[in-house]
Amino acid sequence: MTTLKLRIVFDGAMFGPGKAELLTRIGETGSIAAAGRDMGMSYKRAWMLVEEMNGAFLHPLVSSARGGRGGGGAQLTEAGKEVLALYHDILSRAHTATADAVTELEGMLRALPDGDMSEGK
Amino acid sequence: MTTLKLRIVFDGAMFGPGKAELLTRIGETGSIAAAGRDMGMSYKRAWMLVEEMNGAFLHPLVSSARGGRGGGGAQLTEAGKEVLALYHDILSRAHTATADAVTELEGMLRALPDGDMSEGK
Repeated sequence: MTTLKLRIVFDGAMFGPGKAELLTRIGETGSIAAAGRDMGMSYKRAWMLVEEMNGAFLHPLVSSARGGRGGGGAQLTEAGKEVLALYHDILSRAHTATADAVTELEGMLRALPDGDMSEGK
Repeated sequence: MTTLKLRIVFDGAMFGPGKAELLTRIGETGSIAAAGRDMGMSYKRAWMLVEEMNGAFLHPLVSSARGGRGGGGAQLTEAGKEVLALYHDILSRAHTATADAVTELEGMLRALPDGDMSEGK
């Protein structure tokens, strides 16, 4: 199925599929380290992204207790849940609005042999 | 100004900002090498992307004459122009459909200090 990957480029900040997935997984796992690990991301990078998001928005998106064995817990704040919901809303609106044109573009593609040959990114 | 970066992920192929820009520049410069160079891309990568696009669509998007000093010329085919136009149409529809929700998300951002601090990607 054809999907859209959507990155929103603000003046001075970006929000896209990677950060959305990281937030989602933090909400699911209660841990920044585990969320990053699930995405093949270093602990350091996951933290950096969280700090970047927390700094970019008026209210932090993730609250966390650093330290202790296991690294403390983390959870989405109300602002974090709201940003994630808005992002999904934006993605859904974009999908709906572009469906016909995307179908037209699909019609110009060569038929695929069996098996998925999708490129990395 | 906030913008969207949109990548369309088909079964087995992708089309996004990079390929769209490469096609645009090929149309402008008449050269795959020059188009790639303008984007800081190696000659090899630019060719690879063109071959990938030409293989993914029913009709090639770029026609080229390889060889000779200077590497021959290249131009967008009718299919190439059509794909590019459709991509811009899709992007424009996505922008329109998501404008209100994007504005809402913008309102949750911290005000920027002067100067652009946008991250790379």
